[in-house]
Amino acid sequence: MVTVVILGAGNIAQHLYTVFQTTESVQVVQVYNRSKKALNYFNDVATTTSLKNLVEADVYIIAVADDAIASIANKLPFTDRFVTHTSGSASMHVLHKKNRRGVFYPLQTFTKGAQVDFSTIPLCLETAEKADFKVLQNITEAIGSTSYKISSEQRRALHVSAVFVNNFSNHLYRIAHEICEANNVPFKILNPLIQETARKINTITPYMAQTGPAKRGDEETINDHLAKLEKDIHKEIYTLLTQSIAKTYGREKL
Amino acid sequence: MVTVVILGAGNIAQHLYTVFQTTESVQVVQVYNRSKKALNYFNDVATTTSLKNLVEADVYIIAVADDAIASIANKLPFTDRFVTHTSGSASMHVLHKKNRRGVFYPLQTFTKGAQVDFSTIPLCLETAEKADFKVLQNITEAIGSTSYKISSEQRRALHVSAVFVNNFSNHLYRIAHEICEANNVPFKILNPLIQETARKINTITPYMAQTGPAKRGDEETINDHLAKLEKDIHKEIYTLLTQSIAKTYGREKL
Repeated sequence: MVTVVILGAGNIAQHLYTVFQTTESVQVVQVYNRSKKALNYFNDVATTTSLKNLVEADVYIIAVADDAIASIANKLPFTDRFVTHTSGSASMHVLHKKNRRGVFYPLQTFTKGAQVDFSTIPLCLETAEKADFKVLQNITEAIGSTSYKISSEQRRALHVSAVFVNNFSNHLYRIAHEICEANNVPFKILNPLIQETARKINTITPYMAQTGPAKRGDEETINDHLAKLEKDIHKEIYTLLTQSIAKTYGREKL
Repeated sequence: MVTVVILGAGNIAQHLYTVFQTTESVQVVQVYNRSKKALNYFNDVATTTSLKNLVEADVYIIAVADDAIASIANKLPFTDRFVTHTSGSASMHVLHKKNRRGVFYPLQTFTKGAQVDFSTIPLCLETAEKADFKVLQNITEAIGSTSYKISSEQRRALHVSAVFVNNFSNHLYRIAHEICEANNVPFKILNPLIQETARKINTITPYMAQTGPAKRGDEETINDHLAKLEKDIHKEIYTLLTQSIAKTYGREKL
């Protein structure tokens, strides 16, 4: 049995609490949050709004906004316990060294209220002490996730990569939605293409999966598309991504 | 029974031929291609390399590169028959008006050799004559696809939108792959995030689904990401898409 205290009451804190409740080997013994109201979600566990009242546990998981991690870690009223955070971008070293440190970063986009299948979520683990790594591995196994040993520097690379495949891809969907609306076409027509584009990555590399006018060097279609786009920012994005694809496939002149 | 002649022997021609073979109500009576070798794929149907030998059919489907459609349509040795193309970007009017014209555009990315589930593919249909529309609808139904009535101008909008959600999203996956490789991180860690990002669009709009530092106005993370990126083109793309997201959510100053 691994005992856990969760610090924070937001999206990730809630999802971790919920999945830990389904296991037999991970027990959440307390949830801390500065404000009482946010603790309403956690109705089957001891809660506190004071760091001074924190109980003993095998792992403390700080699941708060990046810029609040250090402040909480500094204020912990104990030493030499195992303290982790869940951030993709914060270094392990933002945690105060008076405690043993680690990172427990689930690489996924969490929607408030939506169910999460942790068995599909990679957990990026890092610890300062080798012995602590096993504890995070045990938690990962208990929730059915796959664990990866990832350093702070590697995690930083993953986090920026995640912005490309998640935030930026989603924004491209948004732009397509705008273009469809401006032309009275239902956006849902594009949904199968969106799913298939993502699905392809299961079997071939993105390099191999690339298609389209930029890769072919089809200037006529590119010019036709640019003429069709109404917003300047859409033209700029189209042009830059077309150049980048062209460069990737050795079509420098586009 | 609808009889069909397919003109062309490439990717789409092959996929259409294969799916038509599975139906009882669509019969491919002939496949034309300029070169004989490419016709090897079509081993259970009459083939020809001469437009003069084309047999009679209810529909002629021209499935060739965009810039070859008009030339083939011009050379057809008959008039007043129903002639269509499968292009997302070419107007219906590139087809010579000596025949009745239409468009049969499957909006999906086709991989050579990979199986295609047509029941998930939207078919964008357009005809000059109202009576011909029903013929394309019947074919669409026979292969289990959903049909949409889409004008040439709307199809042009869809085609450029498809570049954003397919070609450009895939290129973002490619960039993430490069960043992962440069940092010795397995790209497959990002796969669940890629799938979830696409899956979300099934239930909420991309506008609602947006997350990340650009939307939050989190300059510290943005600067950290830019510092982590090594290639100038990656920095440029990161900056432009971040600005576009920031603008979408009223954070003009980023």
